[in-house]
Amino acid sequence: VHRQHLTELGNKLYLLHPADVAYVLESLPQEERMLVWGLVRSDRDGDILLELSDAVRESLIKSMDSEELFAATESLDADEIAELAPDLPRDVVEKLASSLSLEEREQLRAAMSYPEDTVGARMDFDMVTIRDDVTLEVVLRYLRRFDELPDQTDQVFVVDRVDHFKGSLPLDRLLVNEPETLVSEVMSREVLMLSALDDAYEAAQAFERYDLVSAPVLDPSGKLIGRLTVNEVVDVIREESEADLLSSAGLREEEDLFASVWESAKNRWLWLGLNLCTAFFASRVIDTFEGTIAKVVALATLMPIVAGIAGNSGNQTMTLMIRSLALGQVTAANFKLLLKKELAIAGLNGLVWGSVAGLAAWGLYFGSPNAVMLGLLMTLAVMLNLLVGSLIGVIVPLGLEKMGRDPAMGSSVLLTFTTDSMGFFIFLGLASLFF
Amino acid sequence: VHRQHLTELGNKLYLLHPADVAYVLESLPQEERMLVWGLVRSDRDGDILLELSDAVRESLIKSMDSEELFAATESLDADEIAELAPDLPRDVVEKLASSLSLEEREQLRAAMSYPEDTVGARMDFDMVTIRDDVTLEVVLRYLRRFDELPDQTDQVFVVDRVDHFKGSLPLDRLLVNEPETLVSEVMSREVLMLSALDDAYEAAQAFERYDLVSAPVLDPSGKLIGRLTVNEVVDVIREESEADLLSSAGLREEEDLFASVWESAKNRWLWLGLNLCTAFFASRVIDTFEGTIAKVVALATLMPIVAGIAGNSGNQTMTLMIRSLALGQVTAANFKLLLKKELAIAGLNGLVWGSVAGLAAWGLYFGSPNAVMLGLLMTLAVMLNLLVGSLIGVIVPLGLEKMGRDPAMGSSVLLTFTTDSMGFFIFLGLASLFF
Repeated sequence: VHRQHLTELGNKLYLLHPADVAYVLESLPQEERMLVWGLVRSDRDGDILLELSDAVRESLIKSMDSEELFAATESLDADEIAELAPDLPRDVVEKLASSLSLEEREQLRAAMSYPEDTVGARMDFDMVTIRDDVTLEVVLRYLRRFDELPDQTDQVFVVDRVDHFKGSLPLDRLLVNEPETLVSEVMSREVLMLSALDDAYEAAQAFERYDLVSAPVLDPSGKLIGRLTVNEVVDVIREESEADLLSSAGLREEEDLFASVWESAKNRWLWLGLNLCTAFFASRVIDTFEGTIAKVVALATLMPIVAGIAGNSGNQTMTLMIRSLALGQVTAANFKLLLKKELAIAGLNGLVWGSVAGLAAWGLYFGSPNAVMLGLLMTLAVMLNLLVGSLIGVIVPLGLEKMGRDPAMGSSVLLTFTTDSMGFFIFLGLASLFF
Repeated sequence: VHRQHLTELGNKLYLLHPADVAYVLESLPQEERMLVWGLVRSDRDGDILLELSDAVRESLIKSMDSEELFAATESLDADEIAELAPDLPRDVVEKLASSLSLEEREQLRAAMSYPEDTVGARMDFDMVTIRDDVTLEVVLRYLRRFDELPDQTDQVFVVDRVDHFKGSLPLDRLLVNEPETLVSEVMSREVLMLSALDDAYEAAQAFERYDLVSAPVLDPSGKLIGRLTVNEVVDVIREESEADLLSSAGLREEEDLFASVWESAKNRWLWLGLNLCTAFFASRVIDTFEGTIAKVVALATLMPIVAGIAGNSGNQTMTLMIRSLALGQVTAANFKLLLKKELAIAGLNGLVWGSVAGLAAWGLYFGSPNAVMLGLLMTLAVMLNLLVGSLIGVIVPLGLEKMGRDPAMGSSVLLTFTTDSMGFFIFLGLASLFF
């Protein structure tokens, strides 16, 4: 009976789109995942591997031998093989390369040579090109010789004899103009042209801004070498926002939902280790004022508040900065203005929330001889530490960006470190003067 | 000379794409923004308003009177007017509505009636429909009567006499098949069909999964009422990830980079106020153990470490949960497994980092009679609090999602609150038993 169920499941999987099978695999624990993967017909393995997240893809590839992998991937295009290649064993990649045509082998070599975050690594080579000295009638007849057009073809590219890009003929112009019109009369010359080494995320922003479906990719001499399509762009945007999210939480990489405990724990260590170091540093700051705390124990009770609220406020500033940097809205010209604005907000918030916190502290210790002092101390410390938080919130992401790093990465360790240490220092330091 | 510069600037702006003008406006401080906005030719105002973020759009609309607003928006389509309508004065919207054709007025009414996060609020009404009993030749001749096709037309929709959706004819099938073929022979019947009340983000995920450029939107009776295009989908994905980012930092809404200090400060208050409340609660926990702290002041020095590391570790768990929830990978079936896994990771990390922290604490107070005790206490408290952090990290986002809330929203207040309070409670509580 169990076997019968599996056959049924296999048939159902066969009816699903590869992306849906990938989704099912992602949501399954290891054991069931392997079971389902075994049921998938091997000629679909390649398409499904392409749809999986890196983490899950790796685990499935590890479970297959070279022969299975070759069978799964031999029907893929050069750009698809290039996408899987980093995860495949070297002998499989070599066997795949030797099975390709000369042109495709060259494409595979090219695609694998571009860094991961460039347009070159994302482009595909499957596209339709025409000449500009023919009529639309000729183009229509030419297209009828295809079995199908490449996915997401919204324009065909116009090139000269040596494949230099001259413009593009959007399909809608092909369709609304009379057949006797020449391509050169209706083709569009103002096209967003990309280079293979352009940053993929910047290209994605251009797609977003101009509502594009595809764009040509040229080499430095102006030769058409491929195209970027909107489905890749959607992936780039998704991955970029995920990378920001993960790195801001201090996760080194994407994590398979059902990776082993050991793998997952390792993914989180770098950050936790760093956090422990900075926390011990902050604790040393407190230690310096042990004498003051011994005199007024209430200080120990109130100090985490000063650190916490500045950490939160700094995090708001930092989040807005990271977003504005990603959108390219922060320039040398407006940076000073931004910093001033954030400091002004911190000052205003310091006045408001510092007073609230001060009153609350005063209320809590009402009756004690230190009540007024504690209230004033609280107000002052919150105000100053909010300023520190917003300063760090503006400067750290900007500095990381200037250094060519991801502005989100590690920002928040540095922020917490500073607002904690400075919070304790300001609060206890002032207290040591007062008491 | 100044005036001459402005004229030049105006001419330059005229050559820019509306999206580029919007980008320039977003990056300018208030005063310069108004100056540049004044230079933009009024017939382009509408297109530019559509490209702006909500915050900046509002500020520009406020600067215009009803007449200017009407002039700027009268050339827009019904779906575009619907997008701007919430920010426009009521009399402008009414005047716009009365200037529309009967069909368009109906579309405007419909578009405005759908909630913001549905497909209906994002769809457009501009599309080409054909019948299935004609040949491709007839379709080609019909399309030639258009001046241009609607943006992002990758398929034309096949409907019957009463506009019921029957299928779609992708442009590439129109182009590769012989002109004498009937539409019904080559049209695609397996098309992703959306309903106007579908969640826009779920529709976006379907676009992403199946690499779509457009999809038909049907009413409950199966009548074709509009279509969703990939450019809107890209916006939905972008906005969703931004909303997650902002709400996780406790920002109520998108913020204009150059909003007034007052406006910006208000945007951040809810969170800071909440944070202050929870911080005072955590501080009350410490207060309970004032006696113990008075005996061993080192406790005050070490306690923020216990709270901090669990907050960070819980934040990692929570980030992964929020992401998995957004991707729909968390199900009732695998939830328990996930919780077990996260607790196991927290246990392992507790063992590792708890020991490191314990050793460090022991080293710091080496020579003091309390050194061994402090080390043991530290290890135990870090381990327990890491478990608390991961429990909250799994349960809170899931709970918010179950309650129909955004899982990111406020998650981290609750997390910090718990890891702080419980961290102090566990550490000082154990200490009060030990010392």
